[in-house]
Amino acid sequence: MFDPVETLKEFVRFPSVSTDPKQGEGMRGARELIAGLLRETGFEVEEIATPLHPIVVGRRDGDPSWPHVVIYGHYDVQPADPYDLWTTPPFEPREREGRLYGRGAADNKGPLITHLSAVARLLRERPDLPLRLTFLIEGEEEIGSPSFAPFLEKHRDLFEADFVFLSDTGSPNPEQIVITTGLRGITCLEIEAVGPRFDLHSGVHGGAILNPIQALAEICASLHDADGRVNVPGFYDDVCPVADWEREELAKLGVSEVEYARFLGVDRFHAESGFSPFEGVRFRPTLEFNGIGGGYQGEGSKTVIPSRAFAKISCRLVADQDWERIQRTVIDTVERRCPPGIKLNVKTSHSGPPYRVVPPGRPDTPSDQSPALAAAFAAAHEGVARSFGRPPLYLREGGSVPIIGDIKRVTGLDSLMIGLFLPEDNLHAPDESFHLGVMKKGIEVSRSVLLGVADAGGR
Amino acid sequence: MFDPVETLKEFVRFPSVSTDPKQGEGMRGARELIAGLLRETGFEVEEIATPLHPIVVGRRDGDPSWPHVVIYGHYDVQPADPYDLWTTPPFEPREREGRLYGRGAADNKGPLITHLSAVARLLRERPDLPLRLTFLIEGEEEIGSPSFAPFLEKHRDLFEADFVFLSDTGSPNPEQIVITTGLRGITCLEIEAVGPRFDLHSGVHGGAILNPIQALAEICASLHDADGRVNVPGFYDDVCPVADWEREELAKLGVSEVEYARFLGVDRFHAESGFSPFEGVRFRPTLEFNGIGGGYQGEGSKTVIPSRAFAKISCRLVADQDWERIQRTVIDTVERRCPPGIKLNVKTSHSGPPYRVVPPGRPDTPSDQSPALAAAFAAAHEGVARSFGRPPLYLREGGSVPIIGDIKRVTGLDSLMIGLFLPEDNLHAPDESFHLGVMKKGIEVSRSVLLGVADAGGR
Repeated sequence: MFDPVETLKEFVRFPSVSTDPKQGEGMRGARELIAGLLRETGFEVEEIATPLHPIVVGRRDGDPSWPHVVIYGHYDVQPADPYDLWTTPPFEPREREGRLYGRGAADNKGPLITHLSAVARLLRERPDLPLRLTFLIEGEEEIGSPSFAPFLEKHRDLFEADFVFLSDTGSPNPEQIVITTGLRGITCLEIEAVGPRFDLHSGVHGGAILNPIQALAEICASLHDADGRVNVPGFYDDVCPVADWEREELAKLGVSEVEYARFLGVDRFHAESGFSPFEGVRFRPTLEFNGIGGGYQGEGSKTVIPSRAFAKISCRLVADQDWERIQRTVIDTVERRCPPGIKLNVKTSHSGPPYRVVPPGRPDTPSDQSPALAAAFAAAHEGVARSFGRPPLYLREGGSVPIIGDIKRVTGLDSLMIGLFLPEDNLHAPDESFHLGVMKKGIEVSRSVLLGVADAGGR
Repeated sequence: MFDPVETLKEFVRFPSVSTDPKQGEGMRGARELIAGLLRETGFEVEEIATPLHPIVVGRRDGDPSWPHVVIYGHYDVQPADPYDLWTTPPFEPREREGRLYGRGAADNKGPLITHLSAVARLLRERPDLPLRLTFLIEGEEEIGSPSFAPFLEKHRDLFEADFVFLSDTGSPNPEQIVITTGLRGITCLEIEAVGPRFDLHSGVHGGAILNPIQALAEICASLHDADGRVNVPGFYDDVCPVADWEREELAKLGVSEVEYARFLGVDRFHAESGFSPFEGVRFRPTLEFNGIGGGYQGEGSKTVIPSRAFAKISCRLVADQDWERIQRTVIDTVERRCPPGIKLNVKTSHSGPPYRVVPPGRPDTPSDQSPALAAAFAAAHEGVARSFGRPPLYLREGGSVPIIGDIKRVTGLDSLMIGLFLPEDNLHAPDESFHLGVMKKGIEVSRSVLLGVADAGGR
């Protein structure tokens, strides 16, 4: 059987940067490595073409009465620049102090090899394991999974399953694992305020017309109220309330506000009124400005009235908000608040739904929850407690993995997400690494989950 | 005697770009040309060193009872890029359809040669003219005249004069000359809102802290009220009211709001409540945003909460506002309005006083106005009427020539400014040119002014 760490090193060596057209070879190499490992483990492998990077599908079929688990992962990685901030080159994996350094080591190559290793080990021990498995490993996650939703629609048969199993979320430290019970959705847009047809001399023309930066600032300033709430009509209409068990789990996290403020480098928080900063991030929707620009940006001064100015806005959404509805109300609002004399252009970019799953045994657990999913949660709980020495916490996360909500919407499947990233992993940043102790224990947990589901039996 | 147009061509050929350290030869060439012309005309010439580009001083002394006129100009020009937008190369002067094209042709080489030609012609006709003249030709106007105020302080003797005579302002068309009776002052600053110590992932941390772009937008949006007035305490305290004669002169300008809106490409104006757009530009102070920036500015979206965001602000000031006082109140205001959780950094850059002069015979003409200045105004009026076929208008201008206010403050001297730029001259832009018909008539007017002052006699 393949060695997990050596295999991960080999995997990291491929520069599978999905956004970079020059890295076709790196993408192909990473894909072939995964396909080879799946075949070696006994899977039937197929590469399904998309407009950009193929999706690797590995199937272990069996008796239709067996439970069926879809394991999701991605073989593409973020760009590695700025290269000069890396201690060792991003595509030359190195072990240091119990971590493997390299681009993609944590996001998502390490967790993917973790699950593959667990499956390989389990199937070697139990070749007749009564479990159907489908690996879906995409190559466009880092560019927003543009091909995944169409793939979902076209290959619904692959999702005739009990649940999706993945690790593409985080935990606070190597002792405390989080099972992620929710993800925020997202919708992004850019607004541009357009005034005069060219940049004007602020001496010759200043005092006659409305400055587009001023109009933009007024629109942006109007989008929050003094309580830190988003000031857009209907924004909070569909927000799922926070369950008591969710607040209790969060309290167990035991991170202090003082430490968090120090980490961020701020002297005070600004969460929505009535929520702690931790609750604000995990349970509440936001409207953030990701960028703003217009006019002169160089050194010193240049006294122009710019022709135009723009702001990039993203909303993070929580269950049960609908991103299309939110996008529409935000656009309506900014258009309505645009002052006379200014033309407003709005462009939308990527969006995706929020997601929330309730573990078994909670007051709000759906009565029709899949028994296989319930078994998986139970096995994960015991597996984490055994391998990491502490039971998992069940927390929603502030980030977005839009395909999880898309899978739910299209196929009805829920997801079991075991957080294997740590804050020190430097995802999307220089010196990304993966904690090899977490990997080793993660393999045990993944094995426990799959064994638990198989042993619980079919529907 | 030198030919004005040929001399201007020679002058334009020197790339005297004061901001460009590689153009030392161009600066030297332009300076030497001017010094040579002044010597040829009978002036005693000196180059007075500054930390950067020397000031050319040409003196025609004489009987202390003679009137003394200081003629101001500058030999430096704006950079010429983008070169590819020029029809013919910027430093290869070409005549086309009654205009001379080239960088600096209008700003300020043409007007400077106009005055020099008038002086040369007059002194050839009247070698014994009872007039003392001092040319002060600086080389740092296009970079904000940093050496001029210290020079003023150090060489007050040069300004023991009756008034300053210059052409560095505009007129609306070649038939209608404007005598500029006011300039706006200016004060520039940059504010930077600083939040977390690095850019944050808007999923992982969004909802906990105040976004610096949001804070910046709130501060910027607070700086105007709904009536288009600057919402900064004390901003209007010292503003000089508009005299009736000023409104009457402006009415004679005869530009329609419809044409002006079409030129700017806006569908409505936004002047301060109670003022027309033309009045807003010429008579009222402003606070403009010249630039704004922060976070992600590329294509599509990048979901960060930026660590910082900045805005560049400039205030145009009118008589009798004090730029230091306005700068202080604006800084106090933005600091007071900065929300908790955000640190505000403020940087100031260039500033200069406003200026206003009242021609003789108006209700608000100062009773102690210099007789030589009054004679100069009268001669200019008659000269313009004779040469251009229409009397001049007396208007304040929206732009800033800070040294004019500085001269007034330090030496008490007023300025007679005859507008020789036209809107089509493309100052600071590609295809700059100077109208040679205006130049020819301008020489006659300048000659009339100097002759009128000489004939009116000393103090």
